[in-house]
Amino acid sequence: MKKIILSGMRPTGKLHIGHYAAVLKNWVELQKEYDCFFMVADLHALTTEYTNTKEIKNNTYAIVADWLSCGIDPEKSVVFCQSDVPEHSELHLILSMLTPLGWLYSCPTYKEQLKEQSLKDLKTYGFLGYPVLQAADILLYKSQYVPVGKDQIPHVELTRQIARRFNSLYGDYFPEPKELLTETPYIPGIDGRKMSKSYNNCIYLTDTQEEIEKKILKMFTDPKKIHKNDPGDPTNCVVLAFHKVFNKEEAEEIEKLCREGKLGCVEDKRNLSKILYSILEPIRKERGKYTTQKIEEVLLKGKIKAQEVAKITISEVKNLIGLF
Amino acid sequence: MKKIILSGMRPTGKLHIGHYAAVLKNWVELQKEYDCFFMVADLHALTTEYTNTKEIKNNTYAIVADWLSCGIDPEKSVVFCQSDVPEHSELHLILSMLTPLGWLYSCPTYKEQLKEQSLKDLKTYGFLGYPVLQAADILLYKSQYVPVGKDQIPHVELTRQIARRFNSLYGDYFPEPKELLTETPYIPGIDGRKMSKSYNNCIYLTDTQEEIEKKILKMFTDPKKIHKNDPGDPTNCVVLAFHKVFNKEEAEEIEKLCREGKLGCVEDKRNLSKILYSILEPIRKERGKYTTQKIEEVLLKGKIKAQEVAKITISEVKNLIGLF
Repeated sequence: MKKIILSGMRPTGKLHIGHYAAVLKNWVELQKEYDCFFMVADLHALTTEYTNTKEIKNNTYAIVADWLSCGIDPEKSVVFCQSDVPEHSELHLILSMLTPLGWLYSCPTYKEQLKEQSLKDLKTYGFLGYPVLQAADILLYKSQYVPVGKDQIPHVELTRQIARRFNSLYGDYFPEPKELLTETPYIPGIDGRKMSKSYNNCIYLTDTQEEIEKKILKMFTDPKKIHKNDPGDPTNCVVLAFHKVFNKEEAEEIEKLCREGKLGCVEDKRNLSKILYSILEPIRKERGKYTTQKIEEVLLKGKIKAQEVAKITISEVKNLIGLF
Repeated sequence: MKKIILSGMRPTGKLHIGHYAAVLKNWVELQKEYDCFFMVADLHALTTEYTNTKEIKNNTYAIVADWLSCGIDPEKSVVFCQSDVPEHSELHLILSMLTPLGWLYSCPTYKEQLKEQSLKDLKTYGFLGYPVLQAADILLYKSQYVPVGKDQIPHVELTRQIARRFNSLYGDYFPEPKELLTETPYIPGIDGRKMSKSYNNCIYLTDTQEEIEKKILKMFTDPKKIHKNDPGDPTNCVVLAFHKVFNKEEAEEIEKLCREGKLGCVEDKRNLSKILYSILEPIRKERGKYTTQKIEEVLLKGKIKAQEVAKITISEVKNLIGLF
């Protein structure tokens, strides 16, 4: 039997090429080897966005369209929306009973996020509890692996602690999920800062050829390289950072040519445009297939498949605890 | 249209005559005037009893049998089990997102309970959040009234605060429930302490005539009144306390006779036995009707009726927030 994986994304906006490189490419690969549950984490979005929920529904459509266009296959994987499956809330409530407050307050991301997002009022009960919800998401499907970056290891560790506590109280039931560390390549925004909607520096999966070219021409390069034959210092060059991810074979040679003054920025950018276009155009074309109706069908089917598993877990959990 | 009421009990054991006098008699009356939802609060029981859940299922059967025997009518009222209706968990999670931690820490019962139940490990996320779950229970049915004793007013106030916060964020939706203050007569245990299973001083609704008589003969009275003609001081007399609740018309006269040395304790107790028997025997007889199967039927019917309302609320709530 294939092992089970759960992963999810918050519906905070349409996806950019950073999401593609860091997450979606990996998800597409994982489908070959694992039974995957891919979840639109809309209830998680509420932990930080409860005052700003207007776009959650549109964003849900947008990210699912992006997933499918990139190769997530709803015949192979369960693609669903968290709030469509009430069992997430049920398991969350049950696990909340046995989760010490101390585990949540000492979660490293808790204080970080409070600081980072200090403009928002995040001193809510729900925000403190989001690792419990995450544990419920993972354990509901008895996931054995959770694909994460290094920064998220503490969350998976907390899920294991909660699983162990449940198992010790009510009998050995939940497998302890392991993190599946994934390499997350660094893709800066076109201005060199972190790629983020709020900085308006993203290349989206939905961008047209024209938009791609325009954005790439604006990419930050070595400001001291004025003429195309000036030797450049591409240490902070965004174009080179992109080559390193999307054009690995040539990246070294390109860096060399730049340093030797044998490659102008405009030519370099034109090349990168072609490469990104060749990656993004098939995704963009594919996206045309995913009408609103089609996405609703996919999510309905996913909900049904997710609930087939989730209902069994909840019923077994209630039995173990001894609820009516 | 009748106004809506929600009330519930934790399934912590079979009910005693204190529950009958303080809660059930009132519930039976409320059925005439209100649409009532009576809930077995088994998820609430987990907040304090998560390490000790073995009896929850049996206790659920027992208290529902007690309710029905006392006159709760499942044709009129919705009699259901909280964990049977996943919408409680769903609304709890949603409301958790907008409930400030400060509201929960400053809830007067929180610190009290931590102190009172200091033997239990209650520093859990779920225990802190039980007023959020209570708010979800009440708001799920858009209850207008909640029958409570004085000590529980802060909880209803917290529910109103949460309702107001929801309404201000997502549009005017939830009615603000009001407390329906109910007189809670004081019924001591037979030893004069608080009537409680753990003190082994209860008269249960299921007690036989023999058991009732035996317990009443053991009731604490004035220890200085040795002979039946000694004048007594019934200030702390449990028998008199019972007369004041279950035999109001004669209580004053009985007190007088006792103080004048005209009524012996044994005679007084024999009288009280007859009175309690006349109250409890019809309940005990009625109880014979409620087999396990019958109770399961009642709770299934209640679940269906509760979900008819709960599903609409959750769907409207998700729409207002803007979830998929």
